[in-house]
Amino acid sequence: MTMVDHAATSRTAAAAGGPDHDVIVVGAGIIGLATARELLRRGRGVTVVDPDPVSGASRAAAGMLAPVAEVVWDQPALYPLMVESGRRWPGLAAAVAAESGREVGYLANATLVCAGDAADRRHLTELAGLQRDLGMAAEPIPAAEARRREPALGPGCVGAVHLPGDHQVDPRRFCAALLELLGPRVRRARVAGVTFAGDRATGVRLADGTELRGAEVLLAAGLGIGDIAGAPPEVAAALRPVHGEVLRLQVPERLRPLLTRTIRGVVHGRPVYLVPRADGTVVLGATSREDALPGVLAGGVEQLLRDARRLVPAVAELELVETIARARPGSPDDAPLIGRIGPGLSVSAGYFRHGILLTALGAALGADAVTGAPPDPRFAAAIDPTRFPTRRNETP
Amino acid sequence: MTMVDHAATSRTAAAAGGPDHDVIVVGAGIIGLATARELLRRGRGVTVVDPDPVSGASRAAAGMLAPVAEVVWDQPALYPLMVESGRRWPGLAAAVAAESGREVGYLANATLVCAGDAADRRHLTELAGLQRDLGMAAEPIPAAEARRREPALGPGCVGAVHLPGDHQVDPRRFCAALLELLGPRVRRARVAGVTFAGDRATGVRLADGTELRGAEVLLAAGLGIGDIAGAPPEVAAALRPVHGEVLRLQVPERLRPLLTRTIRGVVHGRPVYLVPRADGTVVLGATSREDALPGVLAGGVEQLLRDARRLVPAVAELELVETIARARPGSPDDAPLIGRIGPGLSVSAGYFRHGILLTALGAALGADAVTGAPPDPRFAAAIDPTRFPTRRNETP
Repeated sequence: MTMVDHAATSRTAAAAGGPDHDVIVVGAGIIGLATARELLRRGRGVTVVDPDPVSGASRAAAGMLAPVAEVVWDQPALYPLMVESGRRWPGLAAAVAAESGREVGYLANATLVCAGDAADRRHLTELAGLQRDLGMAAEPIPAAEARRREPALGPGCVGAVHLPGDHQVDPRRFCAALLELLGPRVRRARVAGVTFAGDRATGVRLADGTELRGAEVLLAAGLGIGDIAGAPPEVAAALRPVHGEVLRLQVPERLRPLLTRTIRGVVHGRPVYLVPRADGTVVLGATSREDALPGVLAGGVEQLLRDARRLVPAVAELELVETIARARPGSPDDAPLIGRIGPGLSVSAGYFRHGILLTALGAALGADAVTGAPPDPRFAAAIDPTRFPTRRNETP
Repeated sequence: MTMVDHAATSRTAAAAGGPDHDVIVVGAGIIGLATARELLRRGRGVTVVDPDPVSGASRAAAGMLAPVAEVVWDQPALYPLMVESGRRWPGLAAAVAAESGREVGYLANATLVCAGDAADRRHLTELAGLQRDLGMAAEPIPAAEARRREPALGPGCVGAVHLPGDHQVDPRRFCAALLELLGPRVRRARVAGVTFAGDRATGVRLADGTELRGAEVLLAAGLGIGDIAGAPPEVAAALRPVHGEVLRLQVPERLRPLLTRTIRGVVHGRPVYLVPRADGTVVLGATSREDALPGVLAGGVEQLLRDARRLVPAVAELELVETIARARPGSPDDAPLIGRIGPGLSVSAGYFRHGILLTALGAALGADAVTGAPPDPRFAAAIDPTRFPTRRNETP
């Protein structure tokens, strides 16, 4: 830990009748934690409040850092965010590893996207055209060449696109490293509401009634923002839960290494991914449900296993060691909501499927909002947290 | 608890220089526990030793009491055991519930066996002929009639056989009730070996070196028998691990009741079963692997979900709340090994897929062996624990 400790500053402020805390970050998912670290780096005192750190979407996420593979038609506002955040990830991963003394599971091992049938192949080839038009590296290759690079691919892979720039991090390890370096700055408690003096946020009220006074409050609680009294209603209303199943599979010794890079796929139109970790596990996912059911659905598990096995037949021989489902906070245009909402109150939420990838940029943009720095003009419109007005605010 | 407590007897024996324990039962699966209860009922003192009671096959088992559905061609020695044990189950379940004051999850809710395709239907119709030849109730019905009885059945069920006599118990609840009524007679420790004086078993040696002296030792540790020094080698050699995945699914409120009776099926030649419990869960299983891999295999999970969904499409909408795999102790002819092996030493093991069903009869036969009662002549040959000589004992 080479950072300056600002606890002294906070104590001085409290003694002077000012706030007890400098910046209060609500939510200890990957966004809240990485933003808190960035604020520390910028010399701010930070308190993160969360009843159960890293228990939401960050816990389930596979950790693909895939600015290319995540490209979807007609989301021009999102591409620059993904590319810039991908560019920043190697530096962020190295810094957090150095500061915490922990391995964070960053692997620059590329991605192959496989087609499960001829229609999927046509779709991927067209998408690779868009990716290249955006200046990204995306190389369609024959199935035989894909199998040469990854022998575990089976005949169900009928074509592929090689994406050398899409990497991965292990979100659980990365968040554990952030928790380590933030240490006692992370407080386990539930925030019930934001407190105000006039229109200025003055801190938060915990579920047990305790009030924490803060010079600045950053809401980074994802879907939890909807449960916080005083949170801006247009932010809460813009977020919807998008559930997905994630499986963790253990590769038996006799089959290692099963894969040397991330395999994504489109099988009969359905997305699927297999992310191999250095520890011999594979993370399997890609379901997306808006049915408000929080548990692991049997149908989702079956679909993931079936589609993954089509691309990588040995999936059937792996041990299923974990099933988990978490809700991602979806925004209407898939881009996050980051910025200042009012005096003393900022937000960083709605990262949808891009939470891990966008962490590197999102932490900086969130810290900009909190510290009053003007939003980066390249991204300001895309992330404007007030761009989805609630119905009652619209002109009739 | 209306049973006589024989701790006093045991203490007297110890004071006289005799064994500290009357009967030592090694293994607290459903067989060891039910046999211990039967021995108590017969006035014997009992100590059950197991490092982790009900952690093996009994923990995973679905609990089908299915003497009819479990009929397989060419196992004439097994049918009478299954029929007799099925006959005894209602009485055993009621007695254990009364003695323990606990619900044991016995449900007399019949079974429908569904065919997944035309070949499966022909197989089931032929099997129903054998079942009826054995005097069992097995009524082939059209798929439409099956769906009338169980509306959750989908078009993937192309024919069915109704088995009114196949019921179920919840093995976890039943074993919890047995643990309750046995109380401190169950000792949490690992048995390392049987001790002998000459050829007479005198007790067991625990892993920590403690010796427990017993007038009789009953080995009911299933596959664990292979790890007990001094256990009869022909018994250990006759047992092999047959692993299987079992899933527990939660039916959401809006879909209840999903099923009112057990659905078994044969789908493209593969067995599958869905056992609905009174608590809104469904137990799904039927895989069988002899690959020595102890974990839950992804391929097994996918197969079970796919085949179950073919018969009951709503399976996809259920929450997957548990995946578990346990080894059943398979014997060469699928029937158990129950009887006296030598002076002071008996065995009750090798129940394979029939452990729960055969518990009612097996507890009585095991208690007969321990108490020196002659084996029931109807079953003696079928269960003879010395019927599989090890190779070194065979005449060349």
